[in-house]
Amino acid sequence: MNRALEWQSDAGRLRLLDQRLLPGRTVWLDCHDAPETAAAIRDMVVRGAPAIGITAAWGAVLSARRHFADGGDWRSRVEADLEHLAAARPTAVNLARALDRMRAALDRADAGPETVEAEAARIEAEDIAANRRIGALGAELLPQRARVLTHCNTGFLATGGHGTAAGILRSAFEAGKLHAVFATETRPWLQGLRLTTWELARDGIPVTVIVDSAAAALMRAGEGDAVVVGADRITTRGDVANKIGTYALALAARAHDIPFIVAAPSTTLDPDLAEGDRIPIEDRDPHEIWRVLGRDQAPEGVETHNPAFDITPAELVTAIVTEAGVSRPGEGV
Amino acid sequence: MNRALEWQSDAGRLRLLDQRLLPGRTVWLDCHDAPETAAAIRDMVVRGAPAIGITAAWGAVLSARRHFADGGDWRSRVEADLEHLAAARPTAVNLARALDRMRAALDRADAGPETVEAEAARIEAEDIAANRRIGALGAELLPQRARVLTHCNTGFLATGGHGTAAGILRSAFEAGKLHAVFATETRPWLQGLRLTTWELARDGIPVTVIVDSAAAALMRAGEGDAVVVGADRITTRGDVANKIGTYALALAARAHDIPFIVAAPSTTLDPDLAEGDRIPIEDRDPHEIWRVLGRDQAPEGVETHNPAFDITPAELVTAIVTEAGVSRPGEGV
Repeated sequence: MNRALEWQSDAGRLRLLDQRLLPGRTVWLDCHDAPETAAAIRDMVVRGAPAIGITAAWGAVLSARRHFADGGDWRSRVEADLEHLAAARPTAVNLARALDRMRAALDRADAGPETVEAEAARIEAEDIAANRRIGALGAELLPQRARVLTHCNTGFLATGGHGTAAGILRSAFEAGKLHAVFATETRPWLQGLRLTTWELARDGIPVTVIVDSAAAALMRAGEGDAVVVGADRITTRGDVANKIGTYALALAARAHDIPFIVAAPSTTLDPDLAEGDRIPIEDRDPHEIWRVLGRDQAPEGVETHNPAFDITPAELVTAIVTEAGVSRPGEGV
Repeated sequence: MNRALEWQSDAGRLRLLDQRLLPGRTVWLDCHDAPETAAAIRDMVVRGAPAIGITAAWGAVLSARRHFADGGDWRSRVEADLEHLAAARPTAVNLARALDRMRAALDRADAGPETVEAEAARIEAEDIAANRRIGALGAELLPQRARVLTHCNTGFLATGGHGTAAGILRSAFEAGKLHAVFATETRPWLQGLRLTTWELARDGIPVTVIVDSAAAALMRAGEGDAVVVGADRITTRGDVANKIGTYALALAARAHDIPFIVAAPSTTLDPDLAEGDRIPIEDRDPHEIWRVLGRDQAPEGVETHNPAFDITPAELVTAIVTEAGVSRPGEGV
């Protein structure tokens, strides 16, 4: 099943494919309430900006079901759960925007578990539809026999389905115009090495993995026709928060006159923020870096800096592809 | 002991600190002949351009001792060993240059094991002296309270002692002008995470480790005053072959007007080559990348590209520091 999550209405649970164990093991983890769902987001059972938005929406449904049955002031108890879900990860705006929609559904006079469940289903369906449209629009931007560099995982594991940047790769492959994908391994969490290679190889898409720091040399060697990445938040001026390492790719792409394309559903746009440097950047635990040595933390006398995301300024972005169309922020700023 | 290798003349062996096991375990590995020494270089028991040059020189001594005792055409048998040692790793020129010196020592009319042993000792002593001079010259290029970004390992583990880029850090620290070191972890082999943090913390030098791809964002945040790296080969025009990822750091440094300083003994200069793109780049085994997942190779349907080095063109190099002085290739090209 090409899905990162599955809502099981009758059983009253959200099933998440545990991405921490891929590609070695395929294990589904069940969430029965909002705190379990928030923990799964924080611990990266599920990751990827659109996927965590959808997951949080289903977490809100679990909360509404539980507290509605309790009667009384159920809405305020759901609101507490929504705040808990919103705090699970700070950088991606999709999470906050999905919860805003769930809050609006809850605030309707006739609201009940069915109302909020229908809204979560809409959020998920809209994301899948958006990704298919993004894929079609983005594939048009690529040349024939395109060799595309991508970062992190932006496929079905990171979204409702199909994928954002990986959705463009899928659509380009279906259209017969994708020659090669270079996937960065994406330290520290290795989303590229573990997830993107697994996803693309399943679809028969030719994929070559490289360490993150090899991307610039690959571009210098003339082996990349475009860089295509996802986003966790995009500001009104077109600054892009995305997985740590994205900015270095954008600099290298610019140095080699290679198009730098960002793919994201419009739920990733933050209408309230212009300056990317005001986006909160999540600092994650040092063990994400050190565990490759079998360590939980740095040795004595050594510090660790582990930002999960960075900001690419609009000036370096050739195109932003959403389901609504293609914008070119680099030209306007 | 702050040494990567130790020649034990009476015992007739070269002891190498097995860098594959650091920082977890300190194990010395003995080499008794040239083939063992070549294997240790190829398998990265010892690494770092100057250190492998010195190691190969001692390998030549082991060869001379063995074959001289056999009598007859001992020089031609040593020559076969020299060719074997030279082939162990292709990119660093120090290896070839050290062997050229050993060959010259062998070719002297009075050559015997003592002659070649004296030459190897000279190569080692000269490297240590060069590094101390590089450290002093390079430290002068840094501002007070310098925050320096470095890549890979260039310390005593990579040289005869003191270090090249790390030697500059050591000298700057001794001079009281080093505020912080940001060490990239340096995938795939993790020389930064495993070796540089270990070396610097032992000396009490403040070091913070980051993933390779976070360096550009750090520079964008204004937290780096200089990038200081080593080199595996430098051409006559100033192009620099160094650990994969160096080129991306150079691009980011240029984008942020941060000095990009290369430190290397003059044995790293290749007098026969002008164009960096003609330097052979070693492709190493995919398992170096995949072993973080406990795998020996890529899953079916996935390719791996694992170049050990990249080329930074002279245009991006602010200064090259050797024991002979500071040159500024970026200004001349």
